[in-house]
Amino acid sequence: MIKIRKILIANRAEIAVRVIRACRDLYIKSVAVFTEPDRECLHVKIADEAYRIGTDAIRGYLDIARIIEIAKACGADAIHPGYGFLSENYEFAKACEEANIIFIGPKSEVIYKMGNKNIARNLMMKNGIPVVPGTEKLNDLSLAQLKEQAERIGYPVILKASGGGGGRGIRVVHQEEELENAFESCKREALAYFNNDEVFMEKYIVNPRHIEFQVLGDNYGNIIHLCERDCSIQRRHQKVVEIAPCPGISENLRKTMGVTAVAAAKAVGYTNAGTIEFLLDDYNQFYFMEMNTRIQVEHPVTEEVTGVDLIVRQIRIADGEILDLEQSDIKPRGFAIEVRITAENVWKNFIPSPGKIGEYYPALGPSVRVDSHIYKDYVVPPFYDSMLAKLIIKATSYDLAVNKLERALKEFVIDDIRTTIPFLIAITKTREFRRGYFDTSFIETHLDELLANTEDRHQDNKEEVVAAIAATLKKIRESRK
Amino acid sequence: MIKIRKILIANRAEIAVRVIRACRDLYIKSVAVFTEPDRECLHVKIADEAYRIGTDAIRGYLDIARIIEIAKACGADAIHPGYGFLSENYEFAKACEEANIIFIGPKSEVIYKMGNKNIARNLMMKNGIPVVPGTEKLNDLSLAQLKEQAERIGYPVILKASGGGGGRGIRVVHQEEELENAFESCKREALAYFNNDEVFMEKYIVNPRHIEFQVLGDNYGNIIHLCERDCSIQRRHQKVVEIAPCPGISENLRKTMGVTAVAAAKAVGYTNAGTIEFLLDDYNQFYFMEMNTRIQVEHPVTEEVTGVDLIVRQIRIADGEILDLEQSDIKPRGFAIEVRITAENVWKNFIPSPGKIGEYYPALGPSVRVDSHIYKDYVVPPFYDSMLAKLIIKATSYDLAVNKLERALKEFVIDDIRTTIPFLIAITKTREFRRGYFDTSFIETHLDELLANTEDRHQDNKEEVVAAIAATLKKIRESRK
Repeated sequence: MIKIRKILIANRAEIAVRVIRACRDLYIKSVAVFTEPDRECLHVKIADEAYRIGTDAIRGYLDIARIIEIAKACGADAIHPGYGFLSENYEFAKACEEANIIFIGPKSEVIYKMGNKNIARNLMMKNGIPVVPGTEKLNDLSLAQLKEQAERIGYPVILKASGGGGGRGIRVVHQEEELENAFESCKREALAYFNNDEVFMEKYIVNPRHIEFQVLGDNYGNIIHLCERDCSIQRRHQKVVEIAPCPGISENLRKTMGVTAVAAAKAVGYTNAGTIEFLLDDYNQFYFMEMNTRIQVEHPVTEEVTGVDLIVRQIRIADGEILDLEQSDIKPRGFAIEVRITAENVWKNFIPSPGKIGEYYPALGPSVRVDSHIYKDYVVPPFYDSMLAKLIIKATSYDLAVNKLERALKEFVIDDIRTTIPFLIAITKTREFRRGYFDTSFIETHLDELLANTEDRHQDNKEEVVAAIAATLKKIRESRK
Repeated sequence: MIKIRKILIANRAEIAVRVIRACRDLYIKSVAVFTEPDRECLHVKIADEAYRIGTDAIRGYLDIARIIEIAKACGADAIHPGYGFLSENYEFAKACEEANIIFIGPKSEVIYKMGNKNIARNLMMKNGIPVVPGTEKLNDLSLAQLKEQAERIGYPVILKASGGGGGRGIRVVHQEEELENAFESCKREALAYFNNDEVFMEKYIVNPRHIEFQVLGDNYGNIIHLCERDCSIQRRHQKVVEIAPCPGISENLRKTMGVTAVAAAKAVGYTNAGTIEFLLDDYNQFYFMEMNTRIQVEHPVTEEVTGVDLIVRQIRIADGEILDLEQSDIKPRGFAIEVRITAENVWKNFIPSPGKIGEYYPALGPSVRVDSHIYKDYVVPPFYDSMLAKLIIKATSYDLAVNKLERALKEFVIDDIRTTIPFLIAITKTREFRRGYFDTSFIETHLDELLANTEDRHQDNKEEVVAAIAATLKKIRESRK
């Protein structure tokens, strides 16, 4: 018996639609919020109620007081934060707690601890979780001390903002001469993006695999993991393709990493759904990178292989249910692959390509799932992240999943704006992707090949296209030096 | 390594689209055939090649010589027959064998044997498979002998055409006085529909459950089953809702029925995908009803719970592959439900409602699969079966699957023509469906309740609707007497 009767979704687009569907699946009323430019977004149309939270595109989604006020006024007894926006803001979780509204996620103090990379790191070390060799906060050190630390860890090192995320506030330093400049610019970016200039240093693991474990814990100390996802295929620290389970790692390593992930979650008293991110190096050493204290964009691949509906589970756990899954119940079956289809012009260095969608035919049929907020004639606003849809494929084997992904991408029609569909098709055709053999450098090191194999569906003026490719390639080559 | 390079699909619409997608998943070229009224159907548009097989809507799809000729001319090395049309025509399978084209299905002699209900029945009895008490061919008996047989079996009895199927050539006889008329009209219908007036008699099992087992066999004697489907929710012998696994039967019964299904398939030397249909009575006695020697409309629910792609498997088996699945590998997970969305006007006794589709938004998102051949602006022709789409839902539990089915049906938009979507929603709301407690009489006995709860999305003139309901109810009540 679920006691929650109404959930406000403090988010937009795809993830808001996803949560509204889970509400329907549990006979819970859903409340959408939106800012003026988002009036026509699907989450506003399909929720049971919808309230405007301002005219600015972004600000309303970050307005804690306003969102709590609406939740109270409409009688929502819980809030789902989605991902991004306020989802990892401990003050938001705290404000919900104080207003007696169930925050569908972990406790505010857990968000605080895991959100501060320095605290999280220390907590992990104390609990026997392997972390990348690194330092505490560097801000008070002299340049000489800074250099000493880098020397101790060994180049290359990476500078990271303690409050960072989403690929911001990060600098890789290959040699001593670059250290001072990198340190100053990293602090500046950290201050600008996260209002917190705290920076620390870690050993930079060259071209690791990004492997993360989904964990789920109830309010009574029961915590399990739901196996791992390989999210190594990234472009500028943004995930592009996510796979569950990780192709090609041994059962033994998988088990060790899973046990470690659960230990990490237990160390912080974690409740609800979360993700432990690890880096895996060429010698099968893995290191705790960070914990995401929210649902992830890529959660569907875990749902497809485990059969567990993670959003439904989040709600039931927040409602106070005892987790009725044990670790031995989690038996992943087959492989699932998610690709993020974004409104970007790959021919112009992936610049966002918002605009009005013409014909829209999402891929359908066997093995195909589409999570999205777009529709025919929807105008993609320029203010937000450019994701249009998540295409998720499942199959018994990895190679069949890749074939099915290629098939579904070729059937997927989003007309009149530029999308990454042709680029994603090019990824499916590479030998490395087909063999499941790649790391976080994949897109960067294969960009020439990928662009050469990206069919230009828009059939632009040929000369313009050729010039754009040449310019892109030049830029990339320069950025690699 | 698959040797088949090109497959001709001797079918149309949804199942042709389904097979084409499987071809893509295996990098096999696909060839569509179509008759003139089907020119705009999706299977014609997405196949690698498409050939017209005449102007008459139906005849071309039954033209064995023409289809074989096209297959040869275009270099197809295999033919997939889909369901319906020529799929259970042993002469078609034989013609393929003789033309050295791989028929993706069992051998022609197996189709012949299982297609003749009398031969099939005797074969089953010889191999220890329980069959409904009944007779051999009755056509040569006198009326007195006929009555004697019915007396021996016990009323109610059912008369069936040996070559029948799809609900045609069937008469239920409750008492002796009805026997002669029923016999004559059954023979007439059998002759008209199947060009074969052979009729036999069985004990009529009152309101049984329809439970069928999917089997899969390779060309080397390896046969397994992929668990069962409950197809009890039917309207006039046409399945409306299909569920895997069957809710509420014991593990013990499931196991016994599964073993029996494999024995039945082995008895006839079955190869490729097939279905053993059983009737289950109130005392958990089950009886072999018939074997379908082809893929079924409802195959997706089995795919969803077992994770096995049945069309891909059909092709691989036909290609000569050894089945790499053992019975112990088949572990169904969760529940899957399929509903058939048809173009019918439930307010006018389910008359077909063809026409041009306006807006089309198939349900999307978590747990949802849609197999269909329709699209926006597609004109549904009046010549064929009225199925528009199959909506398939999966979830960990039966009750969550029902909730998700309701959610997805409510999101499903097919505008400008009448569909059964509102009627299917009404089914999801009944207590019996929610509890998984129903038999083949469900729709008939709940029709008043179902129609009363069927929302009229078209908002017709209210008086007209009320009159239509009254007329329908009257008709039904009369037919029940």
